[in-house]
Amino acid sequence: MSTNMSANMTAKSFRVRDPNYVERIKGAFGRQGFLRYVDARIEELAPGRCVIVADFRAELAQQNGYFHGGLIGTIADTAGACAASTLIESWQWMLTAEYKINFLAPAKAARLKAVGEVARAGRTLSVSLVHLYGVDDGGQEQLCALATVTVATLEREAPVFQKD
Amino acid sequence: MSTNMSANMTAKSFRVRDPNYVERIKGAFGRQGFLRYVDARIEELAPGRCVIVADFRAELAQQNGYFHGGLIGTIADTAGACAASTLIESWQWMLTAEYKINFLAPAKAARLKAVGEVARAGRTLSVSLVHLYGVDDGGQEQLCALATVTVATLEREAPVFQKD
Amino acid sequence: MSTNMSANMTAKSFRVRDPNYVERIKGAFGRQGFLRYVDARIEELAPGRCVIVADFRAELAQQNGYFHGGLIGTIADTAGACAASTLIESWQWMLTAEYKINFLAPAKAARLKAVGEVARAGRTLSVSLVHLYGVDDGGQEQLCALATVTVATLEREAPVFQKD
Amino acid sequence: MSTNMSANMTAKSFRVRDPNYVERIKGAFGRQGFLRYVDARIEELAPGRCVIVADFRAELAQQNGYFHGGLIGTIADTAGACAASTLIESWQWMLTAEYKINFLAPAKAARLKAVGEVARAGRTLSVSLVHLYGVDDGGQEQLCALATVTVATLEREAPVFQKD
Repeated sequence: MSTNMSANMTAKSFRVRDPNYVERIKGAFGRQGFLRYVDARIEELAPGRCVIVADFRAELAQQNGYFHGGLIGTIADTAGACAASTLIESWQWMLTAEYKINFLAPAKAARLKAVGEVARAGRTLSVSLVHLYGVDDGGQEQLCALATVTVATLEREAPVFQKD
Repeated sequence: MSTNMSANMTAKSFRVRDPNYVERIKGAFGRQGFLRYVDARIEELAPGRCVIVADFRAELAQQNGYFHGGLIGTIADTAGACAASTLIESWQWMLTAEYKINFLAPAKAARLKAVGEVARAGRTLSVSLVHLYGVDDGGQEQLCALATVTVATLEREAPVFQKD
Repeated sequence: MSTNMSANMTAKSFRVRDPNYVERIKGAFGRQGFLRYVDARIEELAPGRCVIVADFRAELAQQNGYFHGGLIGTIADTAGACAASTLIESWQWMLTAEYKINFLAPAKAARLKAVGEVARAGRTLSVSLVHLYGVDDGGQEQLCALATVTVATLEREAPVFQKD
Repeated sequence: MSTNMSANMTAKSFRVRDPNYVERIKGAFGRQGFLRYVDARIEELAPGRCVIVADFRAELAQQNGYFHGGLIGTIADTAGACAASTLIESWQWMLTAEYKINFLAPAKAARLKAVGEVARAGRTLSVSLVHLYGVDDGGQEQLCALATVTVATLEREAPVFQKD
């Protein structure tokens, strides 16, 4: 499937609450050991949108030389959560509540690219839709997975994960 | 969120194997007691695409007067499976393997509309992405849920659900 | 698969906040037009647990005479949400944020039974695991689907679904 | 929630087709660069069951010092797929079709442990339920996530992911 399934978000306008969201998100991203370990990078940040990329290397593969499904899920989760993070207040933070991923084609490519777009920006819960592409050396993209990510917005003093 | 998140499928071309897919799918649809019971209707069928609608009535609601989440899931499942069914052979049939649905806004509307689009058309497994909208009397649409549906293609003689 | 996969919850103790939870949940259940329409019934309510049943009839079937997947999803959603509702305060209510269902075997049976059990009871978000069984006339149960349901707890005055 | 939600599988009997499944799975596991990179290890393999563990280190964490959600998803996917792999023929192999994970509590622990158990062993599609636990130095386990994994069984010569 060589196609552009990226959702048409042009009609959508998001309200940005924290004008410094790019710095805030890049800072939080950099403090995540696992994202540095797999060398994931933010390629684009815009209101309600985040693109994450990771280059292929053997350490990110499964036995057939494709990107590992767990790594694809990691990149999907990250793109979805960061897309939602562009829309929160400066003092808030986010935690993934759940994500779901469908693998559509083997990701045998030079680069993995996740395009996360917010489908719902709520006060407590936000939902992002993420399209994942394998990108070859010539820049050709092939859709390889589809994910939805639900993130919970947390106020600093009242984490949603607090036990009762 | 009043927006058109419908995926841009214009670049996508699907191969149709059964030229009589419209009749085939409408026939199978009509034999499903539950779909008749909730009065779901096919509004559109095209290669890799299916739109299902259901009008609001109290029998389809939860306690707040919104469309019930289970009904929304039913319509999502149906739109996703029928979209995939447009691309199979005349002698094959499909069974939903799993679906996932995220509710984005209460579906308080005159009509529920599900737009199912195939993201992967495989020999054994197909995946559809479904956008669900509440439609008011003036025709205004609001995205209310997002679903992914995985369907298994079955040959008549070898059902995938056969136990081992 | 004729098996008892029901999770072992004996070691788990839940805190009940509303001693009248049975009446409260049965009342809310009865006000849901769709649940009455499909004739779903609460068979059991206990802290962190809810069993929902529905008897087979042609109006709940797909074309092969099995329970329709959308109906199974409806019963799963309901069992998961009601299980979580046993643990909230009397003034709170719940809305399903998302669910996912995997179909494991065709549900060709006299009765459908959903056993919902809370896996996480949080202040804002709760998660239930639901096992679905086809039950034959002799009472024999067969696991036919597996679902997870996330529900959001709402205070009356501050619905989580409020748009920003 | 400090509890044993591990499903009661004692009543379940699985048919093992490949008596050398332990060696086969350990071999395939060892050829996966990503699993070596995150230092995931197989702790237990039994018919229809697989336990995977990973020790905490900063490279597997997010910014709060918890196991990263993507890493948890990776371990879940692996435990679910390996559990299903215990039941296939020696010449077959498996590919994850989709997975979904719900995070229930922050995984701040010395070790992450995933217990994957097969809920459906089909000819083409299998489904596993995975419970994920944070394990502290004293061996105390806390349920931190719940996942379902669908895997497709592939014959060597006819991969299900082949495009049409």
